[in-house]
Amino acid sequence: MRGLKEEILESVGQDLVEIEAALTQNLKPYLPLVSHVAKYIMFSGGKRIRPLLMVLSARLCGYKGDYDKTLSVVFEYLHVATLLHDDLVDGADVRRGNPVAHSIWGNPATVLVGDFLLARSMGIAIQTNSTSIIDVLAHTMAQMSEGEIHQLLHRGDLAIDERDYMEMIRRKTAYLIRAACQVGALLSEAPEGRVQALADYGHHMGIAVQMIDDLLDYTADAEVLGKATGTDLREGKLTLPIICALNHATSEDRRRLETIIGDTDITESDFETVLELIEKYGGIAYTIGRAEEHIEKAKEYLGIFNASKPRTLLEQLADYVLVREL
Amino acid sequence: MRGLKEEILESVGQDLVEIEAALTQNLKPYLPLVSHVAKYIMFSGGKRIRPLLMVLSARLCGYKGDYDKTLSVVFEYLHVATLLHDDLVDGADVRRGNPVAHSIWGNPATVLVGDFLLARSMGIAIQTNSTSIIDVLAHTMAQMSEGEIHQLLHRGDLAIDERDYMEMIRRKTAYLIRAACQVGALLSEAPEGRVQALADYGHHMGIAVQMIDDLLDYTADAEVLGKATGTDLREGKLTLPIICALNHATSEDRRRLETIIGDTDITESDFETVLELIEKYGGIAYTIGRAEEHIEKAKEYLGIFNASKPRTLLEQLADYVLVREL
Repeated sequence: MRGLKEEILESVGQDLVEIEAALTQNLKPYLPLVSHVAKYIMFSGGKRIRPLLMVLSARLCGYKGDYDKTLSVVFEYLHVATLLHDDLVDGADVRRGNPVAHSIWGNPATVLVGDFLLARSMGIAIQTNSTSIIDVLAHTMAQMSEGEIHQLLHRGDLAIDERDYMEMIRRKTAYLIRAACQVGALLSEAPEGRVQALADYGHHMGIAVQMIDDLLDYTADAEVLGKATGTDLREGKLTLPIICALNHATSEDRRRLETIIGDTDITESDFETVLELIEKYGGIAYTIGRAEEHIEKAKEYLGIFNASKPRTLLEQLADYVLVREL
Repeated sequence: MRGLKEEILESVGQDLVEIEAALTQNLKPYLPLVSHVAKYIMFSGGKRIRPLLMVLSARLCGYKGDYDKTLSVVFEYLHVATLLHDDLVDGADVRRGNPVAHSIWGNPATVLVGDFLLARSMGIAIQTNSTSIIDVLAHTMAQMSEGEIHQLLHRGDLAIDERDYMEMIRRKTAYLIRAACQVGALLSEAPEGRVQALADYGHHMGIAVQMIDDLLDYTADAEVLGKATGTDLREGKLTLPIICALNHATSEDRRRLETIIGDTDITESDFETVLELIEKYGGIAYTIGRAEEHIEKAKEYLGIFNASKPRTLLEQLADYVLVREL
């Protein structure tokens, strides 16, 4: 039986080809180094889910123009700018199986190429002449930076609860995916109700995407993931699986978790212990359950649209979030 | 005799008070840390020359609205964001006599607060509903990041010439000052000729501002400057005074300069030697001369405006660039 992924890819293959081309064509830097750094991170296995969601949202709203692929790169550029700044922030070594940009080009170039991508995003968006679109993007940039700072402040914070977690991932991940869908509708000059429905779809998609990302950091095959599992734990990022475990653990198990989390050097065996405790207290199942709820909500928001190919694709992409392996 | 500075300050005192208030009021972060970091750098002795130029440019074009002070903070926020990212880039320790932000809050918070300020700038600018203004800002952000990268690539590059230097400072400094003046005119919906004249005024002002900054790094009293002189030299930034000396030095003197520039640890006595050689080959006088030419050009571009209080102030601010001590 053909998988969901293959079915989606068959439908959007041409879109993805055009998005890839647009990603290169719209970079337009004055300095070659900017291209090198940006392309290094941009063409190292990204799934282009954000540009694709924008393109499909525009299509769902009946967009007939020719600026959708160009505009869609904004959502990859913003994403990549965040990765460049976050990898630095996180002190990460590896992303998608490759050394992170700042370990090759240094912090300076990494920060500045991130800035260049933020600037290019605005430059591309302004060509739509739509202040609503620019407004969404300006808000998105502010939300993302505050989400990252929020996460930074909660690093290693054992008192973090699910509400904090939700607030962080809403800003740092969901807002950009929400923006991609919303901007697709705005580009099509869709009525307010449709813009809002796609924004809501994007929000719930974004929450689920981050929940599953956080889950995979515990459960994925390291080779598929392109980095060691347990990275979040080692960086002091407490995500939903472990928050759930901390909430339900006996005081003895909680102490075991706290000791490991507080440790500066988490061994493989420590990580195994954490994984066992997360399983014991249902942290994996809980996270999947919450992600499923958000995917269901996301799909419900598409209910105001008549059945159509783009609507089906947006539903399939939502379902795919739950079954992807990386 | 009353100095030029006092005369300017008397005329723009109320504007500066309102700009200061707007700088705080428009920050609006969700997290207090963002305010702390942003205010730390923002309220440590900045001269608000960029917001002031925008406000005066708008006034010169007859602006009668009430968004000028608010919009003017964009130019300080963009400037401060650049400082936050650049101090990190430069590995600087001290700015305006205080430890740099990243040595207190760490690289992560510094990068992210810079991002937040870029985002807020766009959020404030979009309220004008003017896509021309947003367009100028998006270009400015791109130019500034490329200017910084360009500088980074030329660090310690003995082959740097005046053309490279001009290209770098045009992007990294002059473009933002140009944008402030241009946006003042755009906010006033001034005719194209006036927008262009103010953009040209700002460009030449910006070039002169950077030339004098670079000069002061050699000649200023360290206490007035708020950091040690010779910082640029120690960071491998070759600016106009030394480029001039390298150009005219005998091969023996050039070798002496090259040895010191290539050294990782430049002593006080090395710095004295460099300063002597710069004097010997007229690097100080040359830099002042070039800055004076740009100030003259800047003032010429104001010629299309009738005599008025704001025009006089813009002329005085131009003259002040040449006599300031920090």
